Amino acid sequence: MLTPALYLFPVPIDNDTPVNRSIPQYNLVPLREIHHFVVENVRSARRFLKKCDREIDIDSIEFTVLDEHTSPEEVAPMLRPLEQGKPMGVISEAGCPAVADPGADLVAVAQRRGLKVVPLVGPSSILLALMGSGFNGQSFAFNGYLPIHQPARATKLKEMERRIIRERQTQIFIETPYRNNRLVTELAASLPGDRLLCVASGLTGEHERIITRPLSAWSKTTLDFDKTPAIFLLF
Amino acid sequence: MLTPALYLFPVPIDNDTPVNRSIPQYNLVPLREIHHFVVENVRSARRFLKKCDREIDIDSIEFTVLDEHTSPEEVAPMLRPLEQGKPMGVISEAGCPAVADPGADLVAVAQRRGLKVVPLVGPSSILLALMGSGFNGQSFAFNGYLPIHQPARATKLKEMERRIIRERQTQIFIETPYRNNRLVTELAASLPGDRLLCVASGLTGEHERIITRPLSAWSKTTLDFDKTPAIFLLF
Repeated sequence: MLTPALYLFPVPIDNDTPVNRSIPQYNLVPLREIHHFVVENVRSARRFLKKCDREIDIDSIEFTVLDEHTSPEEVAPMLRPLEQGKPMGVISEAGCPAVADPGADLVAVAQRRGLKVVPLVGPSSILLALMGSGFNGQSFAFNGYLPIHQPARATKLKEMERRIIRERQTQIFIETPYRNNRLVTELAASLPGDRLLCVASGLTGEHERIITRPLSAWSKTTLDFDKTPAIFLLF
Repeated sequence: MLTPALYLFPVPIDNDTPVNRSIPQYNLVPLREIHHFVVENVRSARRFLKKCDREIDIDSIEFTVLDEHTSPEEVAPMLRPLEQGKPMGVISEAGCPAVADPGADLVAVAQRRGLKVVPLVGPSSILLALMGSGFNGQSFAFNGYLPIHQPARATKLKEMERRIIRERQTQIFIETPYRNNRLVTELAASLPGDRLLCVASGLTGEHERIITRPLSAWSKTTLDFDKTPAIFLLF
């Protein structure tokens, strides 16, 4: 029998890639025994479960939605099945639950109540991009989205630039996909030309690209990243 | 035929755990076709390859060592097979190559020369600990080892404390395993009692423990983390 715990299931980043490209076989063992899932989106969670195992009886599974519209008071009661001794799972839209995603609140409640949490291995665009960038992996920061408006945006860029120089800390961040190209132009215009930028897009998919160049070279590029999920790293 | 590229192969964190607990099945596809590996340690790389596939012909494989004793000039020539069109692999001691490990220098050279780099999915203690901690996954920093000596150590702790408060940035770091217990005591003595500390040890293994508590509770703990690889998170 599966140990009662909150199991965190990573989901493939790329929709067209087979599950075994980025999920260890073992993850299916707890997956098959869990009947209570907290998910970011029910439709995509069902699709993921079916992809993992076509024999899974989806109708026997209870899904609870935890997304950016969930209010804080609603989170704690979601753990009731686990408090009654039943294993539970968390499935996010893509990548690793609780990293850049609402699942962290649920994990925090589980930790406060002394419930066991089991994170499973899977794809993280942050980590894959860092591995492929060639940048410092001994010290790095993930900053989420940059502030949209000035002057907060320029201040943030300056702060990241300072941490690269003073602390040799790789700076990682994301942008809304339709603004990717504009971001590359902006970085090239506002930071030193010898600063290195890595853009990683389509990770784990057929069109994966991980490209590191100095900003002076990026300013002349015609590479198109608009509308593809991408992750940006500076060093 | 496998596309010529520098493939980055993660390795299980826990020695006693089957490979399929933390490595996707797919990773074995490129692994079987590569005859040139850059490794942190030849013995453990051979052991990993044999664990992945007992049929692998280890004697047909060329291993080049890249570790903390390798001088910078030695790194670039290691990529010669790839420049001649042969796929190459990187295998580190445990976890993901190029994250907190010398492989990053090799990836940097590959990027400078416009060679393709393919990071593969696998276990990262940093990411697993972050997922399991319940801390902010939208903003986090990995700091590597804390400085050993004062006053640099106290300054670093203060800086991390400031970034938790001002930026809500989760702070992640590691310690030499035999000093783990002393570190917990030190943190409890020098930071506010309501600051949350997560200690994650034995990740992906049978004795995995991921425990988040306020420092006021850690100061009274009798939990023993000495000599087990652990990762520390503050929030």
